[in-house]
Formats: sequence, structure tokens, C-alpha cells
Amino acid sequence: MAGPGETPALEERKGMKKVINSPEQVVPEMLRGMGLAHSGLIRIIPEYNVVVRADAPVSGKVALVSGGGSGHEPTHGGYVGPGMLDAACAGNVFTSPTPEQMLEASKAVDGGAGVFYVVKNYTGDVLNFEMAGELAEAEGVQTDYVVTNDDVAVEDSTYTSGRRGIAGTIFVHKICGAAADDGKDLAGIKELAERVNSNVRSMGMALTSCTPPESGEPIFDIGDDELEIGIGIHGEPGVERKKVEPADRIVDEMLEKILGDSVDFSGSEVAVMVNGMGGTPLMELYVAYAHVADVLEREGVQVWRMPYIGDYMTSLEMGYLEAPCDVAAGRPF
Amino acid sequence: MAGPGETPALEERKGMKKVINSPEQVVPEMLRGMGLAHSGLIRIIPEYNVVVRADAPVSGKVALVSGGGSGHEPTHGGYVGPGMLDAACAGNVFTSPTPEQMLEASKAVDGGAGVFYVVKNYTGDVLNFEMAGELAEAEGVQTDYVVTNDDVAVEDSTYTSGRRGIAGTIFVHKICGAAADDGKDLAGIKELAERVNSNVRSMGMALTSCTPPESGEPIFDIGDDELEIGIGIHGEPGVERKKVEPADRIVDEMLEKILGDSVDFSGSEVAVMVNGMGGTPLMELYVAYAHVADVLEREGVQVWRMPYIGDYMTSLEMGYLEAPCDVAAGRPF
Repeated sequence: MAGPGETPALEERKGMKKVINSPEQVVPEMLRGMGLAHSGLIRIIPEYNVVVRADAPVSGKVALVSGGGSGHEPTHGGYVGPGMLDAACAGNVFTSPTPEQMLEASKAVDGGAGVFYVVKNYTGDVLNFEMAGELAEAEGVQTDYVVTNDDVAVEDSTYTSGRRGIAGTIFVHKICGAAADDGKDLAGIKELAERVNSNVRSMGMALTSCTPPESGEPIFDIGDDELEIGIGIHGEPGVERKKVEPADRIVDEMLEKILGDSVDFSGSEVAVMVNGMGGTPLMELYVAYAHVADVLEREGVQVWRMPYIGDYMTSLEMGYLEAPCDVAAGRPF
Repeated sequence: MAGPGETPALEERKGMKKVINSPEQVVPEMLRGMGLAHSGLIRIIPEYNVVVRADAPVSGKVALVSGGGSGHEPTHGGYVGPGMLDAACAGNVFTSPTPEQMLEASKAVDGGAGVFYVVKNYTGDVLNFEMAGELAEAEGVQTDYVVTNDDVAVEDSTYTSGRRGIAGTIFVHKICGAAADDGKDLAGIKELAERVNSNVRSMGMALTSCTPPESGEPIFDIGDDELEIGIGIHGEPGVERKKVEPADRIVDEMLEKILGDSVDFSGSEVAVMVNGMGGTPLMELYVAYAHVADVLEREGVQVWRMPYIGDYMTSLEMGYLEAPCDVAAGRPF
């Protein structure tokens, strides 16, 4: 979703430090690396920047397709495999993939039971997946979709009307992916996806920005002593810009918003994710989780199985922490 | 290994942006978070900052113990579990753990078949593990150890005489951990550890520094348009400081050093790791891997199973890439 702008040569980009060959080739080269690394699990359709499950199409199974701008790895390509996604479409960095990519993905994975799109709520993604659905239907592929909007921070945002879809979306991939493997049909997957999405709440914060390869400029400026609460995964404005605070206070604020939202989590078993955004040391995610566990215990919220702590949906190298909470709806995963 | 220095209050540390409560509490709080998150797999000995396998001691099995300064997560605590380490000792950030910690870990995991230490080659770590071995023997625990030195970049370094131990050490954990589970005795584990270490070669590079919580200052300065080849995981000097280069050229230089060292990898099946150091987007690790795969194919080196691509041994939030290559010795893992 970064504007087009200029693309200076690698050598001229003072301050943009990346292990890349050229900004234009970063997405196809990344996908080539993924395909070479995980050849038994996935294959790449290089003409369309699409990652497909190696054994797709799986006959008789609803196929799950997601996608979005690149720069959020392992989202989405890293979640292609049995029990999760059948295909992922990689847009340019922070840019929606095109309907053509989505159509190609749909045709590659349709096993006759239809294709279900998991779409994060960004205007470009939603429009393009809707259009892809129409194109696919015209070619005889049944489709449906869910729009995820787990971010409690703000209503309406730079690229979104309503709430944004962020890391809680991964719970939709996982739960619906498992249900599709179990044979749930397209209508059932849609009902489940909506139920999971309606039970997931997330919120983000950032200490530092990130720099997309195309522009070579940080996506936002933030002071040496500032953090931003509620920021989006493309640097969209959050709730508040303030001085850096201790970890416990940051966690308190995020959980207050998450637990104070419209889902009553108390007394429930909840799947918890503390998600780093690419530049946050694992050390800090565990420091944050120690307080998350305390707050949830105090609030009578039980943590399901084991929390997910790590980089699940990133924003390049952003120094960022995002804490979705999810009530595992349907089959636990 | 950071000097003691002053510890300014969190609010006074302009530019040090971390999700922590206090620099003094970061290691115990991280361990508390790990313990709460993974209570079925590990337990924490908080008085000693030691992570122990939940079911330790395992009777009749050689116990593997490692450790080192904190700030390299998931190394070492993240590798405690069946088939890998029985315990990990967490020092302060970039500071060796003490012999007392190592002794406590040894006593907690000894199942009667002895305790084996996997020690990365840093002077403090080596001295302290040697002393811990003597203390443990005095208490009736049989011990032995290996010193890993996989880093091909430089001979002798800030904290090391000889070569440094870096991410290739994880292959020693994994291979010896599996062998210990299979019932290999202490002498056999030592022989295997030395064989694996002698077949592992690694090299690092960095684009940006990192900032330990205690000092609040970056561990080294690097220009906006510079990278350093061969740097260590605590910012120790590398081979060369130069202008930022395309990914393929960086990979070429690292692999030239790795493949040109004393092990002849050609014709072998080699376990490959492309390790991020905490601040390198996964996107860039895959871009790098695409070229790693090409070079290895050209050189007649086969990649064993699937490469390991991700943050395995970090240096806080350093923007860094490290590419160990390993000949899987003994039982493949």
C-alpha cells in the first residue's frame, strides 16, 4: 500500500539496509527461496507470485486461500500446508495482490468443493478478493470469503473502513484450515470463519518504524523516546503516541482495550498470541508474556494449551509488539 | 560480556527502545515468561536463572547442558526439551553464566549417566563451564564437555582465543540431544559432539548493531551505508567493513569462506541454516537462501532435508545474517 514513488538504486539508498538484490525483485526472489527451501510442502507459481500447497488440489476439500501485501512474513506464504492454507497470494510490499493472482490461486487449489478466501480488512484486499471471486465463479469455481477485523485499536484507518485485520487472522487460517481438512463444506467454513473472527481481538504497538524496499524511506517517523499504541501493520496511525513506558504498563493498556471490547473472555479458555513484528527480540516478547499471563489470571481468563509467542505476522523489521487474544471457536487446533 | 557501566533509569534512556520493565529484571522476567508459557515442557529454577526440562532428571540418560549470555534467544532456553538440551543457564545479557548456575543445572538434570556441556568458545563461558565441571565432579556428577568453534570469520577475537562458537552450535545440541535420547553414553556423546563441531562451519554479517538493556548504548557503530562481514554475535570485529552490497554478493562472500575452509563439503549432504539475528526480516532470509541454494548446487553440495531459515541464535535486534553450513554427522535429525 506504499505509494509508487521513486526507486533509487541500491547503492544510493543511504540508511536503507537490506539483504536484497533489488527492490523490484525482492518478492519473486523471496518466493523462489521459499520454494527451494520447502519444495516438498509447497510449490510456487512464479508468473503470479502465488504459493500453493504441493499436493493441491485436494479433491473434495474446501480450499483456503489468503494473501495480501508482502512484508508480513511468515504471513501468508508460510502458512500454506496441510491444516492451514491451500494457497497464498503475495502482493508487492504492503500492496494488495491483484484479482488475477487470486484467480490463478483459486484455479490451482480448487478440489471441487469450492474456494474460501480469508481476507484482512484493507480496502484494496477486500475489493480485489471480491473481484477474484466473481472471476472464479465465472470459471465454475464456487467461492466465498470472510473479512477479518480483529484490531480493536481504531475504527476506520488509512487503508480500512471499519476495523483492521491483523495477527488474529492467523487463528482463522488455523481453525478453518483444520475444519476444511476434516471435511467441513464451504457454507460451514464460512460460518466458522465468521464465528472465529467475531471472537478474536488484537492490538498492536510500535517502538520503531520499518522501511519498505521500494521507497527506501521509513513508513513513519517516531521520536527516540516515543512509542505508539494501536498502530497498524503498515504504520497506520494508532490511538496514542507517548513516551516509552515499562513493558507491564504497555501490556496493561493493550489488554485493557482487548478485554474491555465486546467479547467477554472471563471464564473462557482463550488462545493467546504475543506477536513480534520482525524487530522485537524474543526476550522482550517473553517479558511481555509474563505480565500477559498475570493479567489474564487475574481476569479469570484461562490460556488454551500454550501461548503463541514469536513473529507470526510481521511488518518487515518494525520494533513492534502485538497481542491478539482469541477464543478458540470450533475445533481446537 | 558488556562491561558493568551505569544503568540509567528506563525513562532517561533516549534511543533505547525496549519492551522491558527494568534492565536488571529483564533476564528473570524473560525466564518467568518462558516458564509460564511452556509449563508442560520446561521449569525454571528462578534462584539460578536456569531452564530445565520438565521431566528432568531422565534416569540413565546423558544430560545435555548449555548456556551463555542472554540476548541470543531462542538460544539457549528455547532448545530445552526432549531430543535437545536438558538444561540451559542464562547469564546476564552477553555475559557468561556463573559456575554456580551451571552446577545447579547439572545437579537438576543428572540422571546417573553424566552431564555433557556444550560450550561456545568464549573465554568466560569456557572457564566457567570447566569450573562447574570440577564442582559437579566433586559432588559425584560425572561431566564432560565440547567447545564449539564453528565461526570461520576470524582467528582470536574480543572474547575468544581461537575461533568463536556461533549458530552452528545448534546442530551440536540437536545431534547430540538425539543421540543422548537414543542411549549413547558420555564418552560417545563427547566423540559425536567433537565430530559434529569439526564438520560445522558458520559465518556472520551485520547491517545494524543492537543495544543491550544494561548499557542502553549500541554495541558498535556502523555507517548508514555500511555492512560488516564476519562480525560476532556480540558485535566483535569481523573481516571487513564495507559499503552495503546486493544480497547475492554478500552470500557469495560468506559461502566462499565457509566452503573454502578445511572441510570439503562437495558431494556431501549438508544441513544448512540461514540464521537471522533478530532484526532481519524473514523476507530477506529467503532472498538470501535462494542464492545459497544456487551456489550449493553449483558446488555439488546437497541440502539435507529442509534448510533451517529463521532466527535460531540472535543478537537482540541486530540486523544480521549468519549462514552456517553443517555436515550432519552421526544420526540425521
